Amino acid sequence: MNLKQHTEIMLPAIEKELQDQVARLDARNTLPFHEMLTYHMGWTGEGAGREATGKRIRPLIVLLATASAGADWKTSLPAAAAVELVHNFSLVHDDVQDNSEKRRGRPTVWTKWGVPMAINVGDALFVIANQAVMDLIKSHPASTVVRAATILNDTCLDLTRGQFLDMSYEERNDLDLEDYWPMIGGKTSALLSACTHIGSLLGNAEDEVQEAYRQFGYHLGLAFQVQDDILGIWGDEAVTGKSVASDLVDGKNSLPVLFALGKKGIFAERWKQGPITAGEVKAIAAQLENEGGRSFAVEMAEKETQIALEYLSKADLHGSAGESMLDLANMLLNRNQ
Amino acid sequence: MNLKQHTEIMLPAIEKELQDQVARLDARNTLPFHEMLTYHMGWTGEGAGREATGKRIRPLIVLLATASAGADWKTSLPAAAAVELVHNFSLVHDDVQDNSEKRRGRPTVWTKWGVPMAINVGDALFVIANQAVMDLIKSHPASTVVRAATILNDTCLDLTRGQFLDMSYEERNDLDLEDYWPMIGGKTSALLSACTHIGSLLGNAEDEVQEAYRQFGYHLGLAFQVQDDILGIWGDEAVTGKSVASDLVDGKNSLPVLFALGKKGIFAERWKQGPITAGEVKAIAAQLENEGGRSFAVEMAEKETQIALEYLSKADLHGSAGESMLDLANMLLNRNQ
Repeated sequence: MNLKQHTEIMLPAIEKELQDQVARLDARNTLPFHEMLTYHMGWTGEGAGREATGKRIRPLIVLLATASAGADWKTSLPAAAAVELVHNFSLVHDDVQDNSEKRRGRPTVWTKWGVPMAINVGDALFVIANQAVMDLIKSHPASTVVRAATILNDTCLDLTRGQFLDMSYEERNDLDLEDYWPMIGGKTSALLSACTHIGSLLGNAEDEVQEAYRQFGYHLGLAFQVQDDILGIWGDEAVTGKSVASDLVDGKNSLPVLFALGKKGIFAERWKQGPITAGEVKAIAAQLENEGGRSFAVEMAEKETQIALEYLSKADLHGSAGESMLDLANMLLNRNQ
Repeated sequence: MNLKQHTEIMLPAIEKELQDQVARLDARNTLPFHEMLTYHMGWTGEGAGREATGKRIRPLIVLLATASAGADWKTSLPAAAAVELVHNFSLVHDDVQDNSEKRRGRPTVWTKWGVPMAINVGDALFVIANQAVMDLIKSHPASTVVRAATILNDTCLDLTRGQFLDMSYEERNDLDLEDYWPMIGGKTSALLSACTHIGSLLGNAEDEVQEAYRQFGYHLGLAFQVQDDILGIWGDEAVTGKSVASDLVDGKNSLPVLFALGKKGIFAERWKQGPITAGEVKAIAAQLENEGGRSFAVEMAEKETQIALEYLSKADLHGSAGESMLDLANMLLNRNQ
């Protein structure tokens, strides 16, 4: 089986597990509440479907990690659902915190049902994530379930740390490169490292192999985020589907920006003076490139990609699932979308 | 040892465990984040101290349940911290959802740091609650930890259900008595039943004894909430410290109100016309009493108290801790504040 074939059998199983987990709220007196969750998950309401669900990359990584460690990926389905639910809990709260009106082209939960309901929807997704992890008891020893839950909880605290840093940066104008990695480590890498770590744990990998998987996921996350930062400023609009350089207009503290802020040059001077307008974007992106922001980020993405692939090579990958895991990593690390 | 003595040794141990758990965020780059949690918990900032922490009734119940089941309460400390952290997570999010500016006489987290940060503070308290439960592994078998976590997770989903119902009731004007119990079951009773259930589980009680503890906590919660509803309308201001009948002004869907709404009389007619003003409160409270709202609620409180105490009598209470558990229950059920 290749990656495409693995994906074709795993994705429907992931979706089924997610739906079964969320069905915990499918009782008569909480039906409208259930509907808020199924809307956010992309199954119901306007624009429901594949575009609205997102790619389910994280649960796919959990299952491939279990399979490439040599075990039956089906026994990891509750954990795969759990990481996707954690991801979605953070998205629902993020959208409130960032005042974002759209997510994957659709109105966000708070836009449709208000902030109080959206907070509660996020909380419920998070609770169900925790419940999903406990469901691992059906096919794993209790000690493994406790270990998986501990890894996921630690990751969730990292998410709140990353979120805190991201929000607190909005009020600071003394940021530099040092401030980047802890934020991204929490916001992006922690959950990806939980995916590979938990997947390999449930695949009964040895401790040192689990550690290789964990590190692979962590650096995959860093490389992925840095690439995302580069695309957010210099990406081809036709490829990314976002308006070019929207990250500059949004004031996002991306790696190229933080690199240049540390240089205290022309870009830094302008950045501190307030929001970049759409009209300025092209010139400012060029200035940022002149000051080395782009080449530094490219260098970092390559470095983290290299580290990620080195850890993956130590992960003792088994069979066709191992090849699919490697293919997925390469796809994510060399992605052009 | 009596209840006072039990309380005097247990409360400092609870506070220490809570502080150790929250210290997970006590790192250099997240210090301001840590401070938001310690402020909410009542340890730091303006008005810090016993008034600000609340009474820690829930963790006390966990420890007394373990001790009265015949085991060492110290091994339950992480669970005691977990239920108190869950309670506080829900308070922080509640305050945002209800737009409440004060909590225990102090500005709420969102008032001090804004809604986005407050959402993240609630999330972090919830994550730490889950981490605390996993710490039970230090002195309990993994299967017991999984069981405790499962009980707490199920309770947390009940909390989100109760919160959903409470918020959705704000938009409805066809409410009656039927709508009361599921809301209160989720918002108040679920967590109290988790306290007694988990406490007895960790005290190695037999399944049927655990069930008696669970039911005791559940009905204790119902009785407690109904009493709170009565005090919120007819309480003595000097005793409760709240302005009399503030629940009527707040539009709270309390038991006396929902009873009277079902009667579709003069009270129901007025209630549907919009907010009760301070000037009307005395007359409307009298009308509500005339229509039987007060006597019905008193009857229900007595009934639930009776049920709670019956379950407690089946709980096979051990030693002085058992007597303290009974004393605490009586104190909570006959409280005048």
